[in-house]
Amino acid sequence: MRLSRYFLPILKENPKEAEIVSHRLMLRAGMIRQQAAGIYSFLPMGKRVLDKVCAIIREEQNRSGAVELLMPTIQSADLWRESGRYEAYGKEMLRIEDRHERELLFGPTNEEMVTDIFRSSIRSYKDLPLNLYHIQWKFRDEVRPRFGVMRSREFLMKDAYSFDLDFESAQTAYHRMFVAYLRTFNRCGVKVIPMRADTGPIGGDLSHEFIILASTGESEVFCHRDFLAMSVPGADVNFADAAELAAIVKDWTTPYAATDEMHDTALWDGLPDADKVAARGIEVGHIFYFGTKYSEPMNAVVTGPEGKDIPVHMGSYGIGPSRLIAAIIEASHDEAGIIWPRSVAPFDVGLINMKPGDADCDAACETIYAELEKAGVDVLYDDQDTRAGAKFATMDLIGLPMQVIVGPRGAKAGEAEVKVRATGERETIPLASVVARVTA
Amino acid sequence: MRLSRYFLPILKENPKEAEIVSHRLMLRAGMIRQQAAGIYSFLPMGKRVLDKVCAIIREEQNRSGAVELLMPTIQSADLWRESGRYEAYGKEMLRIEDRHERELLFGPTNEEMVTDIFRSSIRSYKDLPLNLYHIQWKFRDEVRPRFGVMRSREFLMKDAYSFDLDFESAQTAYHRMFVAYLRTFNRCGVKVIPMRADTGPIGGDLSHEFIILASTGESEVFCHRDFLAMSVPGADVNFADAAELAAIVKDWTTPYAATDEMHDTALWDGLPDADKVAARGIEVGHIFYFGTKYSEPMNAVVTGPEGKDIPVHMGSYGIGPSRLIAAIIEASHDEAGIIWPRSVAPFDVGLINMKPGDADCDAACETIYAELEKAGVDVLYDDQDTRAGAKFATMDLIGLPMQVIVGPRGAKAGEAEVKVRATGERETIPLASVVARVTA
Repeated sequence: MRLSRYFLPILKENPKEAEIVSHRLMLRAGMIRQQAAGIYSFLPMGKRVLDKVCAIIREEQNRSGAVELLMPTIQSADLWRESGRYEAYGKEMLRIEDRHERELLFGPTNEEMVTDIFRSSIRSYKDLPLNLYHIQWKFRDEVRPRFGVMRSREFLMKDAYSFDLDFESAQTAYHRMFVAYLRTFNRCGVKVIPMRADTGPIGGDLSHEFIILASTGESEVFCHRDFLAMSVPGADVNFADAAELAAIVKDWTTPYAATDEMHDTALWDGLPDADKVAARGIEVGHIFYFGTKYSEPMNAVVTGPEGKDIPVHMGSYGIGPSRLIAAIIEASHDEAGIIWPRSVAPFDVGLINMKPGDADCDAACETIYAELEKAGVDVLYDDQDTRAGAKFATMDLIGLPMQVIVGPRGAKAGEAEVKVRATGERETIPLASVVARVTA
Repeated sequence: MRLSRYFLPILKENPKEAEIVSHRLMLRAGMIRQQAAGIYSFLPMGKRVLDKVCAIIREEQNRSGAVELLMPTIQSADLWRESGRYEAYGKEMLRIEDRHERELLFGPTNEEMVTDIFRSSIRSYKDLPLNLYHIQWKFRDEVRPRFGVMRSREFLMKDAYSFDLDFESAQTAYHRMFVAYLRTFNRCGVKVIPMRADTGPIGGDLSHEFIILASTGESEVFCHRDFLAMSVPGADVNFADAAELAAIVKDWTTPYAATDEMHDTALWDGLPDADKVAARGIEVGHIFYFGTKYSEPMNAVVTGPEGKDIPVHMGSYGIGPSRLIAAIIEASHDEAGIIWPRSVAPFDVGLINMKPGDADCDAACETIYAELEKAGVDVLYDDQDTRAGAKFATMDLIGLPMQVIVGPRGAKAGEAEVKVRATGERETIPLASVVARVTA
């Protein structure tokens, strides 16, 4: 992509309304724009990151056996009356009346609707287990939306829902998502620790939050040092093997880990000081097992092996991709801007033409640009006639993993500079080696 | 994908509420489910088609130089007051009040918001031309929603918005989208004819509808036979060449073509009878040039070459992917069900195991399944223990382009049957040739 044909509205000043790093950097890097309180556009750069994050989430959901569908944003109030949550949900629910005065709402979550889809077509225990997920915009009318997309009112959510015949099978469904989440966040380039959680308004018996460690995180968390060295299951994990999944979950839930709310000071005090990690964290995922909480009132039953109707055991599993992007930035930035993990970077490489109009610079850049694109590398090519300082500052701000810098002297000598954003390391190499270096 | 692990709720009976073929077939083939009047879930099979269609739309938008972003579904009423459309839009707009009694709405279209994004960051004519698009859910509160996703209240829309310094450049922007649309619909496997259109509530001077010819189409259309033989521009069309684009548009707008509303019987009567094609059609795209209709009241100006502020010339360009899916079905089905064009089929191939449990059948199917997946072919593998008749009926109903049928006798003899859905043509071939035949 040529910057001259792109839409990247960089802000030079720190926006006053931004209280946290990710919000500031996302606004400055032209990733988002506020359209109303807690409601944001994802500008082209932000949209690219959102797509990368969603692609990883999707791949790992599919790998675990979950099946993607897409439920609408607008729901009928009647459905929520069946579960009893229409009255209970409170002011966070955005309630709507249509032209025929029918009561609708903008879905804050989808337990009711997915249960309705399930009960309308699944009849037999033989069709279980089933896990249905979608990635769709949700709305929660927060009193005081803030922190950009970290706590917005309209936000993207991947929510998955599992349906099983009994507790044991539901637990395996829970384990599948647990493992899928470990892999998802790991692939997004962040360190995540599962912590036992309160089940809150969704209800249920078993729940974990997935917390990203970030020095600028919203809340205090406590965990055993062992977590920092644990390795995440590989792509070859067998999601059909309940014992293998259970063993992984056991490994990841045995050392002490707790959010502020669930912190057990007695247990904590029992740990050797050298093993204690008190840090700050950001919740990026939340999984729940809640049994028959929705299937019973909504009559989502299957015929069991003995011919009797059995309400299904359910769980729900959420990741907020828009929030996750902000959390990744909180975990990976420096004074100059964002430092994208390669897997979620909006472009792989930034190519800087230091002097557009200079024949050598232009020729070298055009060649590198064409070759990188041909090699399947996503390149943002800064072909604009702006100051060197501004070019460097913008490239550092938007945080692409690698920069290729071509100046008139270097181009004449057949050389370019390659800079690694994360380390700041710079190296001058022959123009002919750039593609090999970048794709290495 | 193994059918036993998928979610494909086929309906055996024709649903009473479905008045048109596409609605009936989408419900029967387990593609959609109604959640409230005019509000649908896309079930897994429907979601896959939606993804395929959106991927084609996106590729062609990008090829033409448009840049993708993502605006939110919920908008502020204040923004619409600036253009004067908040009052004018009428009851089709879903108006919402939040907990602080601020007036919001579910966006029926995005001219105002994209103009706001533009004016907030673009200052100079040097940043033009610009075309920003997104693919996002919209809501129009139709009095009487019907025909499934053909005329739903919540629907997906790709809407693009062009910004140019003057009429001439805006016209080229219009031509770019015109050509991108020809390519998009062609790649979706349907015959489309551009027809001059009324500009309606969006306003403006120049507008075309893109109409798919389908015998079950919603409206009468009239066109010259020449259209049926015209070839669509290739992937090598040069979107930077205004003259090339203008020539293509001229070719595609010269022969007579009109919807019922714009029909000119005098002109029509002048055509030789042999050249007249009176058919039925479905609108799947609509493009508008509307000049400074929004930029003037909303003060979206750039500094021109002479240093003066100039309101930008704009156009908007819509495709409804959810509606397009229904239109493709209207144009491509038979008594037995849907016949998907290959490019938008939810899976490339259906693999039918006629006797799960039979060692030969299972072994042959598992091998074919694994090899097709390895070759990058999307396969739906019917591994379920159901009647042969039901298997065939389901496969024909969901309309995958090709079927591979493995029965116990054939498997023992090392053979499978390959069926082409569109023609019904069947052929028995060696098991070892199946992958080559399918990927040919």
